[in-house]
Amino acid sequence: MTTETAARETIARETTARLMIGTDLAAAMVERAAARAKVLQETTGVQPCLATVLVGDDPASATYVRMKQNRSKKAGIGSRSIVLPAETTTEELVAELTKLSEDPEVHGILLQHPVPAQIDERAAFEAIAPGKDVDGVTMHSFAAMAFGEPGFRSCTPGGILRLLEAYDVPLAGAHTVVIGRSPILGKPAGMLLLASNATVTYTHSRTKDLAELVRQADIVVAAVGKPNFVRGSWLKPGAVVVDAGYNEGNVGDVHFEEAAQVASLVTPVPGGVGPMTIALLLEQTVDAAEAQTAARR
Amino acid sequence: MTTETAARETIARETTARLMIGTDLAAAMVERAAARAKVLQETTGVQPCLATVLVGDDPASATYVRMKQNRSKKAGIGSRSIVLPAETTTEELVAELTKLSEDPEVHGILLQHPVPAQIDERAAFEAIAPGKDVDGVTMHSFAAMAFGEPGFRSCTPGGILRLLEAYDVPLAGAHTVVIGRSPILGKPAGMLLLASNATVTYTHSRTKDLAELVRQADIVVAAVGKPNFVRGSWLKPGAVVVDAGYNEGNVGDVHFEEAAQVASLVTPVPGGVGPMTIALLLEQTVDAAEAQTAARR
Repeated sequence: MTTETAARETIARETTARLMIGTDLAAAMVERAAARAKVLQETTGVQPCLATVLVGDDPASATYVRMKQNRSKKAGIGSRSIVLPAETTTEELVAELTKLSEDPEVHGILLQHPVPAQIDERAAFEAIAPGKDVDGVTMHSFAAMAFGEPGFRSCTPGGILRLLEAYDVPLAGAHTVVIGRSPILGKPAGMLLLASNATVTYTHSRTKDLAELVRQADIVVAAVGKPNFVRGSWLKPGAVVVDAGYNEGNVGDVHFEEAAQVASLVTPVPGGVGPMTIALLLEQTVDAAEAQTAARR
Repeated sequence: MTTETAARETIARETTARLMIGTDLAAAMVERAAARAKVLQETTGVQPCLATVLVGDDPASATYVRMKQNRSKKAGIGSRSIVLPAETTTEELVAELTKLSEDPEVHGILLQHPVPAQIDERAAFEAIAPGKDVDGVTMHSFAAMAFGEPGFRSCTPGGILRLLEAYDVPLAGAHTVVIGRSPILGKPAGMLLLASNATVTYTHSRTKDLAELVRQADIVVAAVGKPNFVRGSWLKPGAVVVDAGYNEGNVGDVHFEEAAQVASLVTPVPGGVGPMTIALLLEQTVDAAEAQTAARR
């Protein structure tokens, strides 16, 4: 457990909430993925390989990519690092992603986002073959999540579902309010919850009476990207609060101290959703490597 | 105006609600589509062609297909009718749809659903090329609706949006409750409303306190397939009520007489959403024919 998580735990102990901690669960997921990667390599000679594509020199993005590569390495997953200049065009990026999609030595592809403004991000995402979309960003992956079809999950929403399952949070019939509607976070999170038989309300910047809607929620998923946006007074006593935000200074989208006074379960930031996201990325990379290796034999 | 619509209008006149009538709007849409079909044929020699695929001998499905063909003909759209036996396999249906997807003389493909139980409906839908998916049933079309990307709309949800727009119903910030979550009706309807900045709540058979949730809605979309399911007492005074149901005996999912006492706008059944669905199918068939003809020149 990190120091930050320990501090959060102290707060939680003095209040009503239990923490939903992702760290240990994620470590167990990564351990299982690593064991499968090892078996795959020993039985077929194939090491799972994740290609990371970074466009431009945003330091935060570079840090994320480096972290994902380090975690991959620890799990016995190889990585191929592609770094493209900030002035890369959509066509150049699409060409690079198409090449990786066709490369039999690459099993999973991660395009670090956001990409620079001149790039059509959707066109870039769609150049990733659905079978290698281990970050769950393509239109195919989204529809697969919505329809319960086979496919990769967007890593943060998929990680949130794992966390809720691990903490035995009942989803069927639960009223879930999702705050935020981005294509890789809010929208797929709502679709996965709906597929688990939750009642799902999508809220966003144009929503009226947001606090009042949130107050009805059995489960709140905050994915809005604004520090301390969700206040304790917005929550129904006993609500389950999932904070998918990760803003500057390690601050989530939920005012943690306030939420901990009201919620029954709450994710800390960091140590909640974050580790689950990376664990699912690695797990899905091994899934992809296994599937592609089996298809070629 | 049909006799049924006139009868509904009499009821509405005695109550608070105005009717949202699709018949005339749909006729105008079909007229514009027909004019475009004529221009396309005169300038390029290409007549838009909709292929309809019917599996089995369900009389209701056969009636629907015949109606769609008749409407196509009136709009100057050619149709190709494929009827397959009830015992058709998934592989055979996929092969037929793949052939149509590759046939340059076919611009749009409609697979009448539901298909017999032995068929994997999703696999069949996915055999339709996205560029010919004028009924909006593929995973690509669904994600395009969710993400605001170019693509065809599912005809009933797309028709509902046109109806709401024509009646100047404000969508931004409106709380919409969608009842039902099927892949071609409830789910895409919610995504289109969300893309129009509505707050969207998905409800379904596992939802608790459904009436209470519906009572909060500025806009209700009933797409559940149960006659007279939504009662007047569930509605907020002044709500806009869209009935996408069409059950045996021309009965919608909303108890019309009760709803008309409470709502500000309500769709009749028939004459509300139904005609909009077919009009959008024809419009999208002409869209497809224009796009494919332009791409080949």
